[in-house]
Amino acid sequence: MKLRMGMVGGGLDAMAGELHRRASALDSRVDFVAGALSSTPERSRAAAKAWGLARGYGSWREMLDAEAKLPATERIEFVTVVTPNHLHVPVSAAFAESGFHVACDKPIALSLQEAKQLCRVVEKSGIVFLLTHNYTGYPMVKQARHMVASGELGNLVKVVVDYPQGWLLQPLEQQGHKGAAWRTDPSKSGAAGCLADIGSHAQHMMHTVTGLDIEALCADFGHLHGRKVDDDISILLRFRGGARGILSASQVMAGEEGGPNFRIYGTRGALEWKQLEPESLVFRQPGQPVRILRRGEAYLCDAAKRASRLPPGHPEGYFEAFGNLYRNFVDAIEARRQGARTEHDFPTAIDGARTMAFIETALESNAAGGKWMRVKDHTH
Amino acid sequence: MKLRMGMVGGGLDAMAGELHRRASALDSRVDFVAGALSSTPERSRAAAKAWGLARGYGSWREMLDAEAKLPATERIEFVTVVTPNHLHVPVSAAFAESGFHVACDKPIALSLQEAKQLCRVVEKSGIVFLLTHNYTGYPMVKQARHMVASGELGNLVKVVVDYPQGWLLQPLEQQGHKGAAWRTDPSKSGAAGCLADIGSHAQHMMHTVTGLDIEALCADFGHLHGRKVDDDISILLRFRGGARGILSASQVMAGEEGGPNFRIYGTRGALEWKQLEPESLVFRQPGQPVRILRRGEAYLCDAAKRASRLPPGHPEGYFEAFGNLYRNFVDAIEARRQGARTEHDFPTAIDGARTMAFIETALESNAAGGKWMRVKDHTH
Amino acid sequence: MKLRMGMVGGGLDAMAGELHRRASALDSRVDFVAGALSSTPERSRAAAKAWGLARGYGSWREMLDAEAKLPATERIEFVTVVTPNHLHVPVSAAFAESGFHVACDKPIALSLQEAKQLCRVVEKSGIVFLLTHNYTGYPMVKQARHMVASGELGNLVKVVVDYPQGWLLQPLEQQGHKGAAWRTDPSKSGAAGCLADIGSHAQHMMHTVTGLDIEALCADFGHLHGRKVDDDISILLRFRGGARGILSASQVMAGEEGGPNFRIYGTRGALEWKQLEPESLVFRQPGQPVRILRRGEAYLCDAAKRASRLPPGHPEGYFEAFGNLYRNFVDAIEARRQGARTEHDFPTAIDGARTMAFIETALESNAAGGKWMRVKDHTH
Amino acid sequence: MKLRMGMVGGGLDAMAGELHRRASALDSRVDFVAGALSSTPERSRAAAKAWGLARGYGSWREMLDAEAKLPATERIEFVTVVTPNHLHVPVSAAFAESGFHVACDKPIALSLQEAKQLCRVVEKSGIVFLLTHNYTGYPMVKQARHMVASGELGNLVKVVVDYPQGWLLQPLEQQGHKGAAWRTDPSKSGAAGCLADIGSHAQHMMHTVTGLDIEALCADFGHLHGRKVDDDISILLRFRGGARGILSASQVMAGEEGGPNFRIYGTRGALEWKQLEPESLVFRQPGQPVRILRRGEAYLCDAAKRASRLPPGHPEGYFEAFGNLYRNFVDAIEARRQGARTEHDFPTAIDGARTMAFIETALESNAAGGKWMRVKDHTH
Repeated sequence: MKLRMGMVGGGLDAMAGELHRRASALDSRVDFVAGALSSTPERSRAAAKAWGLARGYGSWREMLDAEAKLPATERIEFVTVVTPNHLHVPVSAAFAESGFHVACDKPIALSLQEAKQLCRVVEKSGIVFLLTHNYTGYPMVKQARHMVASGELGNLVKVVVDYPQGWLLQPLEQQGHKGAAWRTDPSKSGAAGCLADIGSHAQHMMHTVTGLDIEALCADFGHLHGRKVDDDISILLRFRGGARGILSASQVMAGEEGGPNFRIYGTRGALEWKQLEPESLVFRQPGQPVRILRRGEAYLCDAAKRASRLPPGHPEGYFEAFGNLYRNFVDAIEARRQGARTEHDFPTAIDGARTMAFIETALESNAAGGKWMRVKDHTH
Repeated sequence: MKLRMGMVGGGLDAMAGELHRRASALDSRVDFVAGALSSTPERSRAAAKAWGLARGYGSWREMLDAEAKLPATERIEFVTVVTPNHLHVPVSAAFAESGFHVACDKPIALSLQEAKQLCRVVEKSGIVFLLTHNYTGYPMVKQARHMVASGELGNLVKVVVDYPQGWLLQPLEQQGHKGAAWRTDPSKSGAAGCLADIGSHAQHMMHTVTGLDIEALCADFGHLHGRKVDDDISILLRFRGGARGILSASQVMAGEEGGPNFRIYGTRGALEWKQLEPESLVFRQPGQPVRILRRGEAYLCDAAKRASRLPPGHPEGYFEAFGNLYRNFVDAIEARRQGARTEHDFPTAIDGARTMAFIETALESNAAGGKWMRVKDHTH
Repeated sequence: MKLRMGMVGGGLDAMAGELHRRASALDSRVDFVAGALSSTPERSRAAAKAWGLARGYGSWREMLDAEAKLPATERIEFVTVVTPNHLHVPVSAAFAESGFHVACDKPIALSLQEAKQLCRVVEKSGIVFLLTHNYTGYPMVKQARHMVASGELGNLVKVVVDYPQGWLLQPLEQQGHKGAAWRTDPSKSGAAGCLADIGSHAQHMMHTVTGLDIEALCADFGHLHGRKVDDDISILLRFRGGARGILSASQVMAGEEGGPNFRIYGTRGALEWKQLEPESLVFRQPGQPVRILRRGEAYLCDAAKRASRLPPGHPEGYFEAFGNLYRNFVDAIEARRQGARTEHDFPTAIDGARTMAFIETALESNAAGGKWMRVKDHTH
Repeated sequence: MKLRMGMVGGGLDAMAGELHRRASALDSRVDFVAGALSSTPERSRAAAKAWGLARGYGSWREMLDAEAKLPATERIEFVTVVTPNHLHVPVSAAFAESGFHVACDKPIALSLQEAKQLCRVVEKSGIVFLLTHNYTGYPMVKQARHMVASGELGNLVKVVVDYPQGWLLQPLEQQGHKGAAWRTDPSKSGAAGCLADIGSHAQHMMHTVTGLDIEALCADFGHLHGRKVDDDISILLRFRGGARGILSASQVMAGEEGGPNFRIYGTRGALEWKQLEPESLVFRQPGQPVRILRRGEAYLCDAAKRASRLPPGHPEGYFEAFGNLYRNFVDAIEARRQGARTEHDFPTAIDGARTMAFIETALESNAAGGKWMRVKDHTH
């Protein structure tokens, strides 16, 4: 039995919708049946028709009302929210309050306060919530997380995460490029540019793999072409427990395709991973040959093995990593149906709140000329 | 409108069926509706049910008869053949003769003669035929083919193709491993072991990218554990036009994950590609910096760009390459519907016959102690 | 005619002396004839004998006096100073004032003030002064410098330099390791640990390649095992002209061998180089294949070609880079003899002062809890 | 006390002489004092003067006579032979018969018969003989040899060695290029072109690391531009004991810098090494992470550690590998002086004979159209 999925946003010309559609379909455990895919009723319904959905709606409210009235055997079981960022919380909260599970694109919210509010809704409603920080779905990221957690690196000393891109090096927003336009317009994307767009992925990756909490940070941002939001960020980090870190991301690094990439150093060993070579995890130990761990091998941890669809020798990539989020989300929903409350191996609302605390603190640090600031609390 | 697909073979425990199912579904242009998935009627129907197919049959003949009687708007439009090798030709031919398009796993046949016979059936029937040599579906392979064809390498001088694997280093066939057992049993896999299993991929890759025809070859095979089929092959090649080559493949190279990998040298430049790093194509020119071409970039040829689903920075892999075969196959079927006869960018029956000529000649060369032999004709 | 070299410090058990001996001898243009190699007269003379030097002295003052009295055709023409750091300035200044050319190990001094003082002595004396920041001797570093200077990267936007080592991860200084002991003892190495030892190389590399001046910096240092000096540094940089940077170095990164490594991003392109793969320089341009420039090739700039001793295909390394400093230093001395004042392609006293300004500012920034500070002036 | 070296051949414009001069000087244990460096007396003496040698001779016979008459404390202790190939044996034999140790460039001879003859002279004279197959001087090659010999790879199954170059892709010999002219002129270089020039390095590397003896081979050669000698070779190998191999080398592979590179596969593991990345040795074992062993590390075998001059993090290269041959040769001469007969860790005359047997057999195999031939005996 497949789960029935609905989607809000992600209409025909949006890359995000297409990615979620493919990622959710990857394991044939999801039926995409309903959608309110665009901001106007006409385009919304047209998109649903073009994608062959059973039920196309004119707006997400219409969709929510209608689906809630359908019998349980017909209505969607979860909604994927790929709207512009400012709608993430209203849509997610409304569906959650009606008992629908929710998969929401990152960033979870425009503010920490809004994110915390959604956390409360999610907790109260008891639904399963997936925040699609897709890069942490890679099997070798799970392996890295496992190795840190099981002590193979000893106590952590230094963490370096970087997410280099180059696509905004030219002022595309002045040349009619839609994606560049909204990302560099604070009224649409919020005060954070590169920081929210990809710095958030870097921070989430760092937290997922290391489990470390940032205590304080010092941020310095750059921006080209008179942009009103950052397009290049450098942040020094101090973690609870004494480790230090550097987090950087950029959208103006000529010729760079993307990340995130990390290096994690502990008292006993170190790990290195690059998203563009996702099947290898480099493990260094003092006085030992460098070890390259490879996706699909029997020596990996269970979570890494479960996250793999093909044997070694058959490269997996971005879609499979994204698909792993949906796979584990679907597992969790099915477990929930049977009354089980399982450990979730995917990002959820609290991760989104943590990221918003990071973003808001970094914005303030940079605005203050690069002052060290304690990271805001994201839990209350 | 999606195309309706049926499948013969590929039941629940077979990796091949799963791969074809995923690859054909990748772009949401195919509905997998019917199948005769296993060799016994009970298991066959059970498998169809487990996969949620609309119509499960007890045998491929039953399926052929039943589908042929359905109205054109309901019956399958093509069949995917993932049976054991000896059934490839009978099943493909029967469906082709009834007007169904066919996607058939490699190797196309057990003998050159059988392959030629199937070529004639395909030609006569006018159907679209796909032979799933999936590795040639990678975008950067298409780019390499384009660069050779457009003369960027000059006249070809030397070609080196290698497909290294290590999974048969231990005698798994003596330890209950099914895949190892049939692959090393000449009564089931034919006289060629590694040669047919992966050497065929290496040969097809070589031909696809270079367009060169092998004139003569000299083969030397090895086998461990008293195996009756080769598990390691080394073949010297002389091409029509004067270029030379080395083709090797092995299933007993400790720790190797797979290939194929190629290096192609011409009078003006050279290309290198490795399947485990499929997003990069290395281009060397005398007196120039080495150039690394990357998947997804605007400077690639049209076929390479069409074969890409994600922008740079988002790794694609094996499934996408496989999916490209189905995508182009579906395009061809749809063009055929409208009366068009398009250039096919995928392997077809004649490629299968060419590979069988290569395999038979290599077997004879090795059996003769490593004599140079002219490659058999595959066209008449 | 070879130049006659003397050495102060670098006795038998010191790696630095051995490196300088080999590097200066590499092109057979230097005769190492005299030395005051150790801190006690006996060991000093014994070392000179063991190395087969013509003249062994008990102390550097004895050496200076004696050599100054020799006829010009016999006395040393330059002295290499590889003493503990606190003697760099006194020894160098004394020899310079007597008209000997000087090659001095880095760091040039213990303080900015001392460094400036030495700059004045060097300028007044008119001698040729070499500061052995050896990593900038690599041919591909010269190529990078050339490409930045000639505008191939456009205006610089972001610079990232890293020097990762792991050898101080364990408290070797508590286990009788001499090199670890003096490096972590502020009374011997000064207040800066990793910062002075290798951070200085990173800063010098950054300046050499980019030509950028640091306007302000913000430093955050770590130290393990209760060390009194830093063993891990992270520094944010703002350059005059608007570019930004990150400079990091560590001696506690498990399993890391060393650097420095840099990535330099401009409005038109970017360069990447790693000291452990010194023969390749990666050049990225938006919308172009990645280019790998290789040592020894005819397309490189003159300075890079001159810095090469072997054709491509024959790896060069650390010694050759170090030797390039001595080669250019010897060229400069010979030019000076003939009255010419040539452009020097090697680090000199002013580079040392610039580095000391960087070090002192970084120490103060870190001590202030990570405050942004304007970099001190090193020119007056 | 340094050893006194003489040189025959290697005059000012020859790369080989320069390489030997540098390599022998690397550890300051050799004094280069005498030479007959060129084929005419005038140029020979001029070259000696230019290099500052104590004694320049007009011919090698003059040098031999004069040096033999000098007192033992003055005369050269060994001679380096870097003449054109046809003089290797006459010069080496004459010096050996007079009791001088000999370092001779490869190939040792023009024919197997001549090589065997020299072996007899060397054995009878009791001198130390070094054949300068320099690539086997790399530390990680010694490590590979050690791992094979100590059984870490199990029984060997397959060996692949390749030496790709591209510098003869254009007909340089028709454009006044001296090195290209003599190498492609059978009257000067012998019947073997690429085979003798670099194929010999590949064969020697293969034998050194694996210890395997070739039982039979099958060769196929190519040549561009109407050359009378091969410029591209592909050779299948069968080793005593059952392993198989592929040896290839080329001087017409566009953009390739050089090799040799090897992959060695056994029943328990595999090794991979590339000369352009000489500091890493890749070790694969079934079911294990890939291990990268690095030069300079404490876990390496003694021979590899002894062959290292710098700690990890400081790249070594071609000169150091070449220098290791001289270092071990000097050690052996010094041991000999003291009456010891030590194991030699460097190539010697018998290696040269083995290579000549390989070359002659390969030439005959290719001439016969690519027939399998048993390799000639090189020991009697």
